[in-house]
Amino acid sequence: MQKEFDTAVAAIQPVDRSLTDKGQAHLDSLTKPQGSLGRLEDLALQLFLIQEGQALQADPMRIYTVAGDHGVNDEGVSLFPQEVTRQMILNFLGGGAGINVLAKTAGAQLYVVDAGSCGGGYDEHPNLIQAKIAPGTANLAQGPAMTRDQCLQALMLGIDLADRAYADGVKILGTGDMGISNTTPSTALYCAFLGLKPLEVTGPGTGLDSDAVGRKAEVVARGLKVNRSALESGDAVEILAALGGLEIATLAGLILGGAKNRQLVSVDGFISTAAYAAAWKICPAVKDYCIISHASAEPGHAKAVSAMDLDPLLHLGFRLGEGTGAACAMYLVRSAVDMYNNMATFADAGVAEAHD
Amino acid sequence: MQKEFDTAVAAIQPVDRSLTDKGQAHLDSLTKPQGSLGRLEDLALQLFLIQEGQALQADPMRIYTVAGDHGVNDEGVSLFPQEVTRQMILNFLGGGAGINVLAKTAGAQLYVVDAGSCGGGYDEHPNLIQAKIAPGTANLAQGPAMTRDQCLQALMLGIDLADRAYADGVKILGTGDMGISNTTPSTALYCAFLGLKPLEVTGPGTGLDSDAVGRKAEVVARGLKVNRSALESGDAVEILAALGGLEIATLAGLILGGAKNRQLVSVDGFISTAAYAAAWKICPAVKDYCIISHASAEPGHAKAVSAMDLDPLLHLGFRLGEGTGAACAMYLVRSAVDMYNNMATFADAGVAEAHD
Repeated sequence: MQKEFDTAVAAIQPVDRSLTDKGQAHLDSLTKPQGSLGRLEDLALQLFLIQEGQALQADPMRIYTVAGDHGVNDEGVSLFPQEVTRQMILNFLGGGAGINVLAKTAGAQLYVVDAGSCGGGYDEHPNLIQAKIAPGTANLAQGPAMTRDQCLQALMLGIDLADRAYADGVKILGTGDMGISNTTPSTALYCAFLGLKPLEVTGPGTGLDSDAVGRKAEVVARGLKVNRSALESGDAVEILAALGGLEIATLAGLILGGAKNRQLVSVDGFISTAAYAAAWKICPAVKDYCIISHASAEPGHAKAVSAMDLDPLLHLGFRLGEGTGAACAMYLVRSAVDMYNNMATFADAGVAEAHD
Repeated sequence: MQKEFDTAVAAIQPVDRSLTDKGQAHLDSLTKPQGSLGRLEDLALQLFLIQEGQALQADPMRIYTVAGDHGVNDEGVSLFPQEVTRQMILNFLGGGAGINVLAKTAGAQLYVVDAGSCGGGYDEHPNLIQAKIAPGTANLAQGPAMTRDQCLQALMLGIDLADRAYADGVKILGTGDMGISNTTPSTALYCAFLGLKPLEVTGPGTGLDSDAVGRKAEVVARGLKVNRSALESGDAVEILAALGGLEIATLAGLILGGAKNRQLVSVDGFISTAAYAAAWKICPAVKDYCIISHASAEPGHAKAVSAMDLDPLLHLGFRLGEGTGAACAMYLVRSAVDMYNNMATFADAGVAEAHD
C-alpha cells in the first residue's frame, strides 16, 4: 500500500509556468479592460496551465461527499449525536441535503462515499460508493485515530475516486465531507501541520457555546500531546493517521489524485481544507491544482488558509461542509472557462483598444 | 412625465417584515445547522419577503445592459475612445462581450438598451431595445449633463424595462452598463448623494495612472461646483440630471421599476451602484428589493456601499461593468431559491436535530 501510494504521489507534476504568458496574452486579447474580470481571469489562467489546451474544459464536474465517524465524539465535542452521520448519508441518497441541491444547481455530479461511518453497510444506490475502511476512528485524544495502514487505505481510496472520475472524463473535482465531530480532527491537523495553537483554531463547529469551545480546544491539545511521537516524526502520513479521520484522509487522497490526473480540485471548507493541508504537506505541487472555494465561517479557517498563503474565492459565511462551498465555486470555474473560450477578441469584434 | 414618474414611485411598498419569522422558521427546519448556509439563507429570506410565496421563484432572470455616452469624455477621463461605446453595443449584439458569456452561463436573458450612445441608430436585433433619448449627455464639468426632462425620460425608460420584464414573468432583474467615461458621472453622484469627497471616490476606471486619476478628481470637483444649485435643491432627480448619465438614470429607473413590481434586482458594480444610490435617494424602500452583487475593484465602490450600509455578495475583483457581476450573483440567487424550495426538513428526512 505504501509503495502504491508513493508511486501515485511521485506522478504529481507542478504545472509548466512557462505557459503563463501564452494564457495571459489570450486573456488580454479579449474585449474587456485588461484584468477587469479579476479572479475569473485567475481561474482561467490556472486552468490553462493545468489543461495546457487551446480551449479549456469545465465539464463534467463531480463532487465526492465522503463520510466518516470519529472516536473523539466521545469527548462531547459536537451538538449533534453521532447517528447523524448515518442519517445524513441517507439524506444525501434521498436527495434532500444542502449538497444535493447545490450540486444540481451547479451542474455537478454528486457521489456519496462511505469511508468510515459507524454501523454496517447501506442499501445499494447508484450514487453511493461503499468503501468503509473502519466503522469510525479511535479517539484521537487517547491515541492515534487511525493506524498507518488505515490512513494509507483512505488515501488510496481518494486517489481511486479521482481516477474513476478521470476515466469518466471529469475535468473539475469537488471535495465534500460528512462526519459528526470532524471539526475537532481538522483543528488538530491545522495545529500539527501549520504550527497553530488549539485556542487559535478551535471554533464552534455546528454551534457550540464558548465554554464548550474551550473544552474542545483542551481535547485538541490533549490529542496533540498524546500523539506527540507522530508529530515529531515529521511524516505527514503519520500525522494524518494520528489526528485525522477516514473521510479527511480520503479527501487528502482525492486532492492528490486530482493533481496527479491534472484535474482542478475545488476544495470545500474547514474540513476539506484540513485534508488539503495534509495533501500539501505530502506533495506541495497540489497547490497548482486546487482552489479554496470559500472562506468558512468557522473562525479558524481564515488563520489556516492564511498560514498556507491561500486566498478563498467566495465569502458567503458557509459552515455546512458536504461540498456546498465547493459546488458554488465550481459554477465560477465554469464561468471562467466560458469567458476564456467564448469571448470575442478586440481584433475580431473591431473594438478599439486602450491608448497609452 | 413628472406625474407618471411620481405615480410609479408611489407604488413602491416596503416588504412586510412581519413575515420574517415564517421564512426563518422554514430555513431552520431544513437539514443543516441553523444559519450554516450564511448569505444564501439571507438571499432566500429576502426573496421570501419580496415574493411572499410558499415556493420561491428565481427564473426567468433578465439582465438589461444599458448604454450611454458622456460629454465629460471631452475632459480626457478615459483611456478608451468614445467610439468604443458603439463598438461594444455591436459586440453585445454579436455575442462576444463578457456579459454575453456570463449571462448565458448564469442562465439569464440579456437585452441591450441604447439609452444614449453617440451617433445614429443600429440595425434591428431581437435583443436590442433602441430608446435613444439623446446622443450622449452634455459635459457635467461645464453644466448639467441632462435636462430634467431627459432624466425623467430615462427614469421612465428604466421603469418600462422592468414592466416589460414583469409582463414576461421575469422574477430577477440584473443591471448592466456600457458607457465610456461613465465612472466619472458615477463618482460625482456618490459625492453628491453620499457626502463623499472627489479624491476619496475617484479611481482608475479602465486603467488611468495616478496623475490621470488626480485630474479626473478635479473634473468631478468642477462638476460639483458648476452644478451647485442642483445639489443644493436636495431634489434627487435634479441631482441625477445634473451629474448622471442617460444609462445611469435608466438603470435607476430599472431599480425603481423592479421594486414597484416586487422583482429582486441584482445590482452590478461601480456604475450600477451609483444608479442604486439615486434610486435609493428617490425612494429608500428600493433597498428591500436589491442586492449589491459584488464589490467592484474600483476603489471608491467600497466607500460608497459602506456609506449606504450595504454588503456586496461577491468579492471577485471585477471592474468591467456590463452586468458581469450581477450575472454571477444571479446564479447564487438561484442556488438560494433551490435550497429554500428543495432541501428536506429534519422531520421529513428523519435526521436528529442539535441538542441543547
